[in-house]
Amino acid sequence: MSFPSTQKQWTIKSADRGIDGLVLESGPVPTPGEGEVLVRLHGASLNYRDLIIPRGMYRFPLDLPVVAASDGAGEVVAVGSKITKWKKGDRVTTLFNQAHQYGPMTAEASKSGLGGVLDGTLRQYGAFRQDGLVKTPDNLSDVESATLVCAGLTSWNALYGLKTLLPGQTVLVQGTGGVSMFALQFAKAAGARVIATTSSADKAEKLKQLGADHVINYREDPNWGETARKLTPGEVGVDHIIEVGGEGTLTQSLKAVKFEGVISVIGFLAGAEPKDSIMEALTRVCTIRGVYVGSRAQMEDMMAAVEVNKIRPVVDEQVFTLETVREAYDYMWAQKHFGKVGIKI
Amino acid sequence: MSFPSTQKQWTIKSADRGIDGLVLESGPVPTPGEGEVLVRLHGASLNYRDLIIPRGMYRFPLDLPVVAASDGAGEVVAVGSKITKWKKGDRVTTLFNQAHQYGPMTAEASKSGLGGVLDGTLRQYGAFRQDGLVKTPDNLSDVESATLVCAGLTSWNALYGLKTLLPGQTVLVQGTGGVSMFALQFAKAAGARVIATTSSADKAEKLKQLGADHVINYREDPNWGETARKLTPGEVGVDHIIEVGGEGTLTQSLKAVKFEGVISVIGFLAGAEPKDSIMEALTRVCTIRGVYVGSRAQMEDMMAAVEVNKIRPVVDEQVFTLETVREAYDYMWAQKHFGKVGIKI
Amino acid sequence: MSFPSTQKQWTIKSADRGIDGLVLESGPVPTPGEGEVLVRLHGASLNYRDLIIPRGMYRFPLDLPVVAASDGAGEVVAVGSKITKWKKGDRVTTLFNQAHQYGPMTAEASKSGLGGVLDGTLRQYGAFRQDGLVKTPDNLSDVESATLVCAGLTSWNALYGLKTLLPGQTVLVQGTGGVSMFALQFAKAAGARVIATTSSADKAEKLKQLGADHVINYREDPNWGETARKLTPGEVGVDHIIEVGGEGTLTQSLKAVKFEGVISVIGFLAGAEPKDSIMEALTRVCTIRGVYVGSRAQMEDMMAAVEVNKIRPVVDEQVFTLETVREAYDYMWAQKHFGKVGIKI
Amino acid sequence: MSFPSTQKQWTIKSADRGIDGLVLESGPVPTPGEGEVLVRLHGASLNYRDLIIPRGMYRFPLDLPVVAASDGAGEVVAVGSKITKWKKGDRVTTLFNQAHQYGPMTAEASKSGLGGVLDGTLRQYGAFRQDGLVKTPDNLSDVESATLVCAGLTSWNALYGLKTLLPGQTVLVQGTGGVSMFALQFAKAAGARVIATTSSADKAEKLKQLGADHVINYREDPNWGETARKLTPGEVGVDHIIEVGGEGTLTQSLKAVKFEGVISVIGFLAGAEPKDSIMEALTRVCTIRGVYVGSRAQMEDMMAAVEVNKIRPVVDEQVFTLETVREAYDYMWAQKHFGKVGIKI
Repeated sequence: MSFPSTQKQWTIKSADRGIDGLVLESGPVPTPGEGEVLVRLHGASLNYRDLIIPRGMYRFPLDLPVVAASDGAGEVVAVGSKITKWKKGDRVTTLFNQAHQYGPMTAEASKSGLGGVLDGTLRQYGAFRQDGLVKTPDNLSDVESATLVCAGLTSWNALYGLKTLLPGQTVLVQGTGGVSMFALQFAKAAGARVIATTSSADKAEKLKQLGADHVINYREDPNWGETARKLTPGEVGVDHIIEVGGEGTLTQSLKAVKFEGVISVIGFLAGAEPKDSIMEALTRVCTIRGVYVGSRAQMEDMMAAVEVNKIRPVVDEQVFTLETVREAYDYMWAQKHFGKVGIKI
Repeated sequence: MSFPSTQKQWTIKSADRGIDGLVLESGPVPTPGEGEVLVRLHGASLNYRDLIIPRGMYRFPLDLPVVAASDGAGEVVAVGSKITKWKKGDRVTTLFNQAHQYGPMTAEASKSGLGGVLDGTLRQYGAFRQDGLVKTPDNLSDVESATLVCAGLTSWNALYGLKTLLPGQTVLVQGTGGVSMFALQFAKAAGARVIATTSSADKAEKLKQLGADHVINYREDPNWGETARKLTPGEVGVDHIIEVGGEGTLTQSLKAVKFEGVISVIGFLAGAEPKDSIMEALTRVCTIRGVYVGSRAQMEDMMAAVEVNKIRPVVDEQVFTLETVREAYDYMWAQKHFGKVGIKI
Repeated sequence: MSFPSTQKQWTIKSADRGIDGLVLESGPVPTPGEGEVLVRLHGASLNYRDLIIPRGMYRFPLDLPVVAASDGAGEVVAVGSKITKWKKGDRVTTLFNQAHQYGPMTAEASKSGLGGVLDGTLRQYGAFRQDGLVKTPDNLSDVESATLVCAGLTSWNALYGLKTLLPGQTVLVQGTGGVSMFALQFAKAAGARVIATTSSADKAEKLKQLGADHVINYREDPNWGETARKLTPGEVGVDHIIEVGGEGTLTQSLKAVKFEGVISVIGFLAGAEPKDSIMEALTRVCTIRGVYVGSRAQMEDMMAAVEVNKIRPVVDEQVFTLETVREAYDYMWAQKHFGKVGIKI
Repeated sequence: MSFPSTQKQWTIKSADRGIDGLVLESGPVPTPGEGEVLVRLHGASLNYRDLIIPRGMYRFPLDLPVVAASDGAGEVVAVGSKITKWKKGDRVTTLFNQAHQYGPMTAEASKSGLGGVLDGTLRQYGAFRQDGLVKTPDNLSDVESATLVCAGLTSWNALYGLKTLLPGQTVLVQGTGGVSMFALQFAKAAGARVIATTSSADKAEKLKQLGADHVINYREDPNWGETARKLTPGEVGVDHIIEVGGEGTLTQSLKAVKFEGVISVIGFLAGAEPKDSIMEALTRVCTIRGVYVGSRAQMEDMMAAVEVNKIRPVVDEQVFTLETVREAYDYMWAQKHFGKVGIKI
């Protein structure tokens, strides 16, 4: 089998020129090393992280220029000489931090993010180490599977990475961003109760269709943290909160959380900075945890749950192509999307 | 509020006269102590343990005579002077081992079983320590809730007491006994895959209605352990096996189990003795665990899961009364039941 | 056996008059209820919490007037009619939150603190529920055992309550307060490496005698967090940090902590408020946990560790008596102590 | 730097000719692949497994011929083109199952054992994947470090792989084999109480020198399980038992174990088959776990504990060389050793 020697790819050239730092260019089709796999990428999706990297707002390590985006899925088309795990034709999905294989995040693993340090997924062909990929669930398209790479795994890590979510517990999710909607879907599949917040009646309806037991309109109910707490049995509070950041959200989360509950803060991905005092967290005797995606071991667990429960990621109706990636970035930046922004390659 | 001074109760007088050791007699309505609660029992259910206690086949501590049965639910009708947790009118369900409050089983807690060491539930009124009861789920009748006391909690403990079941994992349950069917229902509510075994096409149908992903007829497929393993992704084996005992079942379970999977043996409740060598367990690098019901903390978690997921226990169509308890014992002994045998009081 | 009907006790009458709210008065010797035990207290110790309660600086629930202090140990002298766990002559130590029996702290359990909501230990006789006491380790005096009630258990909970400390890991403790010194002793007994901070050469010497592997003088090295990180193998950072609060300490702790390490904040007991932004915590992908003493189950584990490892709490040379309690409060408020302030009763 | 092209190596040619299947021959010095490291081995040690492989008694996968032995340590002398983790001069120790990186053992990982499936350590040079090695603790010689590879890690996995050993708990170890003595040393470093069994007064003395709190002579006290239980506080039983197999040992272990304690069976490595009924395990409500060495993640934790606590493996006085490997096998087969049998290469 032979491949073209060059391909189209979207490269982030700089982090100080705004979105113009992202350019479409011609790049080499990589040759896989002994322990690598060549993947023909068919689907990708965008995260807020991707939007802010060229804008210089991302806090984690970068190594520019780099092929953009972390979320990808496709088909194995060639394998290195020492590959035992994959064979041609296998459907695979990328791991965000390629070196985060298992256990807690490490400083070293944090320097292996696709689309930041290592070349990402907005291209036709990518070479990845064999343990930098997981099997794509049978029930998903490549675009759907790609959406799980960052948002899905962050959500899974929040629910299972520190204190394991149990059936019957309560989860609170904020808004309709990717991480929040995956957390809603995962929590319902796992037999938990879910309270969601939003500011729109339309979105409230969609959240209920996804299984939310209660939806609170945070515009109409600024003290929604207290309201959430009262919706839990015995009014003891919420076990797991997915805190995505924003004006005053942490203050409300602290009102909602159960004693020794977990507030998983993923807002730093989005650059938002809660101003709330850490002291309130302490008088609630709770745990605040920074979550940064997750490991391959966690991703394999998540994919198994997705497959068994036939979970379908929420993908925005408008799907883009490799040619219209720039429009996809603009569409998402303008917040026109509901669900993940997908790209067919 | 005043209560009668005496009541009807079924007492186990002896463990050496067979079922005739179980007699209906008149007993006192207890007066609750400072830290106790008086409960008007409205529902009860039977376990195999109840059948074998008068027949002298039960392995755990007994203190005869004792009012029979462990599973009960009803309404609080009076509270002791130091009770803060319950009030009149609360719907409550009994805890099997009254002293098993949390954490692992202990020798001491094993000596506090209702219907074995302490007076049980086949009577109209019982006095219980305040932490020997849990709240009855809103979605259940008293008979339904009672069925969870022993069989439900054993099953929950098997799935969550050593290694926590995760969504996407695989559970194998054997037959249609109470513990197995609860395990099936809990596992499905928690997003797991379930493989069930049975010897009857009728029961296979019912197991599928309860959500079983695969049903294996163990008569037609004596090597069902191998078959089960092959039904798991990558044929790596089953994460959790509910081993209820019987001729050769452990041998098959060892073929089905994943490396480092858990085989929870609850068959000892039923007196069945697997003849299989423990060595096979070891070469499978797995864990075999004896499970003996569970703690109040676990029961509260289970009840929350039951309520959120609106799980309805499978109760046999024929429900008995306090007057027909002896018929209930005979009915169950003759294995005429499907699901738990309930008693309205 | 007969007891006096009245006794001397130190009562907190108010939280708005400063230390004068603490008065020595005559109170009744309680009669134990059915499920209670009467204890002749022989030893007590003070915590910073005790000092700030009459000064109105304590954040947790109070129910005044209340007999002061939470830490006590003594001998069972009478038992209620339903007591099975204790008998006369047993040496026992008090549990801080009497209702915190096991598992995570709860809102309800937080309302059962001795010397705050329930009558405490600065008296000769106290009646306690039978599960509000634990066995005193054989190797300790009553004063020594009392010092473990609040400071020891807080430290144990920090090291074992969320992520279990393993031998070979690194713990950082700040200063020479009670919680920090217990954490040092527990961590060394458990085979961990310990880095301690202090501002005095004298105290540095004592910390080394207690087993500290490294002592950093935080006056001389204001960037001690970075220094601590560099002392860990591979410079990956500290696994467990005991954060006791103070100007800029959290900032340094965040420099010292490993990815996904745990910062246990116990400073809120002392009323200190770190001004640091929670965002730094998140970019370190770590966990910040508020710790509020611990449960009886944890205390029993701790006491077993104390006994097996013959751990001797560090008690200040000057030990006070029931008559000189006011001097003890003043001595500790003036920070003249090194180690726990003990009171012989 | 240049290496010889051939080297001396001990190869297992067959599993049906007894010890004569082990032969000294000339083999190639491997060239490391892109992701591999070349190690100059300086130390090795033997396990019972090594002795029984040529004798056809080993139960796990083999792929003969294979260079013998799994335990090795040495120095990195060359690295492949994609190696980032190691550099020349690093001191490294081998991982037993090269593919067992983290988490539970898997069927796949069980097929990557050194000296069984992959070429082992009884040679001068070996090429290993970069994650098939761990850093040698600074306080150990190469021979000492090698002894930890199989026996040490099995012991660590037993104590930390299912239920984490806590300071203050009780561990029972049987005899003076490598796994038992490491378990004794690890448990003492971790602040646990240790009960050891032996049949000789001499060995009893050595066990006490290693820190055993109690030593039982199992010849003089055939009911030693009961004796061990009575040595635990409250006579509740032992938390962790290292079961190495032998006539009737499991029966005694079941008498010694606490409710819900863990019996880690490692005897299958030695080929011994307990005849005891599994039912006894169940009425003790305990857990029996087959342990098969452990993962790299666990090995790194263990090595950290070894280094911090300056644990020195017990190595038999008589240390062999690559030339006298056959004598080493005979010496160990004749049970002349105390502690691990080491080989300087």
